[in-house]
Amino acid sequence: MKTASVCTIGDEILIGQIVDTNSSHIARELNLLGIQVKYMTSIGDDRGRIISELTRCLDNTDIVIVTGGLGPTKDDITKDALRELSGSAGYKESSEQMAHIERILGARGIPMIDTNRAQALVPDNCTVIPNTLGTAPCMAFYGLGKQGKSALYSLPGVPFEAIGLLPAVMADIRRHFELEEITHHTIVTFGIPESTLAKQIEAWEDALPANIHLAYLPNPTVGVRLRLTQFGGKADFTPYITELQEILGEAIYGEGEDTLQSVIGRRLRAEGKTLALAESCTGGHLSELITSVAGCSDYYKGSVTSYSNEVKMKVLGVKSETLAQYGAVSEACVREMASGVLRVLDTDYAAATSGIAGPGGGSPEKPVGTAWLAAAKRQPDGSVTVATQCVHFASSRAVNIERFASYALDLLRRNL
Amino acid sequence: MKTASVCTIGDEILIGQIVDTNSSHIARELNLLGIQVKYMTSIGDDRGRIISELTRCLDNTDIVIVTGGLGPTKDDITKDALRELSGSAGYKESSEQMAHIERILGARGIPMIDTNRAQALVPDNCTVIPNTLGTAPCMAFYGLGKQGKSALYSLPGVPFEAIGLLPAVMADIRRHFELEEITHHTIVTFGIPESTLAKQIEAWEDALPANIHLAYLPNPTVGVRLRLTQFGGKADFTPYITELQEILGEAIYGEGEDTLQSVIGRRLRAEGKTLALAESCTGGHLSELITSVAGCSDYYKGSVTSYSNEVKMKVLGVKSETLAQYGAVSEACVREMASGVLRVLDTDYAAATSGIAGPGGGSPEKPVGTAWLAAAKRQPDGSVTVATQCVHFASSRAVNIERFASYALDLLRRNL
Repeated sequence: MKTASVCTIGDEILIGQIVDTNSSHIARELNLLGIQVKYMTSIGDDRGRIISELTRCLDNTDIVIVTGGLGPTKDDITKDALRELSGSAGYKESSEQMAHIERILGARGIPMIDTNRAQALVPDNCTVIPNTLGTAPCMAFYGLGKQGKSALYSLPGVPFEAIGLLPAVMADIRRHFELEEITHHTIVTFGIPESTLAKQIEAWEDALPANIHLAYLPNPTVGVRLRLTQFGGKADFTPYITELQEILGEAIYGEGEDTLQSVIGRRLRAEGKTLALAESCTGGHLSELITSVAGCSDYYKGSVTSYSNEVKMKVLGVKSETLAQYGAVSEACVREMASGVLRVLDTDYAAATSGIAGPGGGSPEKPVGTAWLAAAKRQPDGSVTVATQCVHFASSRAVNIERFASYALDLLRRNL
Repeated sequence: MKTASVCTIGDEILIGQIVDTNSSHIARELNLLGIQVKYMTSIGDDRGRIISELTRCLDNTDIVIVTGGLGPTKDDITKDALRELSGSAGYKESSEQMAHIERILGARGIPMIDTNRAQALVPDNCTVIPNTLGTAPCMAFYGLGKQGKSALYSLPGVPFEAIGLLPAVMADIRRHFELEEITHHTIVTFGIPESTLAKQIEAWEDALPANIHLAYLPNPTVGVRLRLTQFGGKADFTPYITELQEILGEAIYGEGEDTLQSVIGRRLRAEGKTLALAESCTGGHLSELITSVAGCSDYYKGSVTSYSNEVKMKVLGVKSETLAQYGAVSEACVREMASGVLRVLDTDYAAATSGIAGPGGGSPEKPVGTAWLAAAKRQPDGSVTVATQCVHFASSRAVNIERFASYALDLLRRNL
């Protein structure tokens, strides 16, 4: 099995100014190729530390991926450290990257200055993988480390540029290293906690052939992804997935990179149906999840965040008696919110949330972390049916909101 | 200057399943105490690697903070590695943590099982800092490393538990190490890019006394934080801040941990005023930011996400002629959205967004990344005035949405 190191360079990480999200993306891509990440480390903008840490990584792993430490305002400590590490005498200009720099600056109306021009300069021994999204290129170096067989890829630190370069970097890794054949199939589930899920599918998992490996990938918004991986040979996961579907039923909602919001969107688009949302405790997060899917305007008409009882009554038509008798966090209220927004925005479906995200509020009967969720559906005869669910969580405000929203999406997709 | 290492333990990080947010929080807290983070690294669930990496960190830095590798379903590789590293012969029970475990499980109605009980067991040489938010305690060890002077703190990996324990851990570090006196004052700005800001305050920065250090802390949602730090002695930053206010004017909107949404909330609460939002391209994110502030129901009435022209007209009262003549992404439309939602939700203030987040859509005149923003205000005579702004960004869908929302908040706070 090939091994890798993932390194980030930049003082901004070591002083806690930014969260490093690049390493996680890179590790996931390497993992999908069957490459084991052994080292994951952050290095400050210090030439000595960069050289010693990268040397350690190159000596002990086959592939080293570095992000950050490049860019027009940086001191280019990284680039010169890479020149030394790769045994390059000097620098050469990448005409291909220069063309992208000219195009990008031109589009933004920014005049080219020396620091931009310097970004097209790379160490002699480097192979450039052009960056079409930014000015700093990806630099690839081969034949490094104590075995003379390791490769190093240096990417810019800006997340959308680094992630944009990953497909080309992974393709380059596949070409340069003899990787074992590997096949994946991922099933996405929602609503069953990881530990319960593990119990439910224990016998099925134990019966998997030795060359098929199962991984649990839990995510609060997505649910638990179950990834089957086969090393070597031609993979046919169909029989195992059919068995899994029998065990888990409608807890399975998709595959691969599917999310609740992407699956809901696909279903609505296919059926030519529309959606509206009414939010209280989730405060806009539910709508944000639906609109995180590009092209959602095909089926999503909009939402009302009714953070006050006045808006619940005036805009959504929730009855004052309902609020007086049951309160805003109640099945009756969330039911009227869902059917109300469906009628006001004239859609086929609607979802609604009303709960107590905390930290304040709540009562012994309705503690912080309680929410009522609803999914409304317009029937062919014009009447509206509403499914409801009550959930309880005991986390921070932000995490409670995140969970309320995912469970509301799950209730909606079960009732499409 | 004391030095530190921040380590995360867990295969889930090395396979890219989760993003490590704990390290960034911990590094920031250490940095505020004037402690330099030298190593930041992730280690898999492997006993040998845990021992060798933690030994390297303890030998080379004064303080080592570890998160993860604990918990009822883990193999407790970490805890036993820590027992060995600390020279503990065996385990003892922490009655204080046991009381928290009983309370937490009791509140959730979960019966106590052996794996829960085992969480109160800690190595002999360890000092327990109790975890009131979860079942795994924080374990502190002193007198480690090749100098016999280093300390190690092991925290659970669950972010809200780790972050909840940080104040107690930092207080413990202050007690155990002689730290140089350090004082900070942070000013928060929005709307001026970091590089431009640096030019504007260059002369001011150069004139700062040698014992006062300035740090730029940019954040896409918050703006650029400017942090003044003084090592030793009694600090009075007042004259420097007064000068800074003269240079930057209303680009400065707060101090310390202020955010646009917290400052807006404070102003509205103090004046007894209310707020409504109308969103198009931001799809709920603006409302999510406002509701991320606990207690916002005091001043926030709600929002309408009008993702279709139909909802813009029907719910917000945008004129069909406006949409026909100027389109949805226009000053005229966003102006009618803001004044419309102010009237419909009957508030004193409103903000609105309409733009093209991408990746699809856009035209030569209105490319992807363009948005119109508006802030409406009800005047004493009942009339409504609206301020507008057009912004252009060239990033991914998610980043464009984030920037549209922050600029809308900034426009709102400038017009309160």
